[in-house]
Amino acid sequence: MGLIKDTYPSALLEEAVEAIGSLPGIGRRSALRLALHLLRQPAENVHRFTDAVNHLRDDARYCKTCMMISDGEECSICSDKSRDRRTICVVENIRDVMSIENTGQYHGLYHVLGGIISPINGIGPSDLTIAELVSRVAGLSEDDPDSVEVIMALSGDVEGETTAFYIYRQISRFGVKVTSLARGLGFGADLEYADELTLGRSIVSRQPFKA
Amino acid sequence: MGLIKDTYPSALLEEAVEAIGSLPGIGRRSALRLALHLLRQPAENVHRFTDAVNHLRDDARYCKTCMMISDGEECSICSDKSRDRRTICVVENIRDVMSIENTGQYHGLYHVLGGIISPINGIGPSDLTIAELVSRVAGLSEDDPDSVEVIMALSGDVEGETTAFYIYRQISRFGVKVTSLARGLGFGADLEYADELTLGRSIVSRQPFKA
Repeated sequence: MGLIKDTYPSALLEEAVEAIGSLPGIGRRSALRLALHLLRQPAENVHRFTDAVNHLRDDARYCKTCMMISDGEECSICSDKSRDRRTICVVENIRDVMSIENTGQYHGLYHVLGGIISPINGIGPSDLTIAELVSRVAGLSEDDPDSVEVIMALSGDVEGETTAFYIYRQISRFGVKVTSLARGLGFGADLEYADELTLGRSIVSRQPFKA
Repeated sequence: MGLIKDTYPSALLEEAVEAIGSLPGIGRRSALRLALHLLRQPAENVHRFTDAVNHLRDDARYCKTCMMISDGEECSICSDKSRDRRTICVVENIRDVMSIENTGQYHGLYHVLGGIISPINGIGPSDLTIAELVSRVAGLSEDDPDSVEVIMALSGDVEGETTAFYIYRQISRFGVKVTSLARGLGFGADLEYADELTLGRSIVSRQPFKA
């Protein structure tokens, strides 16, 4: 690395490689490859690329209801009147929303936490949109709380469980239904290769056989 | 892919993902991950990133002598008076220059072709800086051509060999010395895993044993 750094033929190239290499998962070698690629592209293509990145960072807004990235005040999902407005699926980030939307199985709304409680990474409840979720649930539960469902769609690791539990303690008092994603063997998964925790859970929460 | 595309919550996000995903070796999923990473960064960091890329594309120049990317009219290597100005190492691209510089074993100058002759990819001699190399060698060979050496440091594949041969035919008439990189087993390489071509060449061009 040091050696490579020492022999950059151009400060402009070095700065671009540093910048590209600062992206997660892109090492210095890939960064150099990408920089030389961009150098070979027509200027307008490169500007279209950098403009798109700048626009995203400068002009992106967040839905006032679910905190998802949105081009307007309210995202396309929250403003879709055909969706079940009393079911809220709590997810860590936008990618999770996109994954669940891709299943076509969910017709409620979302709440994007913007992260997960992680003491190791110094992320506490106040760094997430939990307060917004709580007041949102409070509002919904004012009439007929039984008809409100909050689905915890967080990862199955310790941090996900911790976050789900923290949120549960905040909203359970409103008497709304709180559920979480079913855990078990993936469809078509081979028993032999399932980790013990997943397998164990799939036994405990076994379901009536459907023939 | 289509599905994911359909469910972008934001056109800004989609445009950024398209732009990032257009880079070589970056798929749509990584592009989304990178876009969401940039979205989380402070605006000034993102602008530093895009400025560095724009500067590279807009302000980079090429050395008038060796055609390598350079911040000035002549690159740092060509303007280094301590280097052997009568030895030219012909390489495909800037990365090759950096690799050879990293060995610390070469003290001559370079010539960056900017590619390699590849009929399949529609790259012919006129797309490369071969004409510049020829006139450069012609100039050097005006006095004492025997003291001029042109080293072909091109890849060992068919396209590299073709390019080297094409260049050789152009410059041999100047009576300069033309050499090419030694080919053989890598240091510490295991005979068992060497491909037959490399192994064969390493036998043909065997060298006196140094004890």
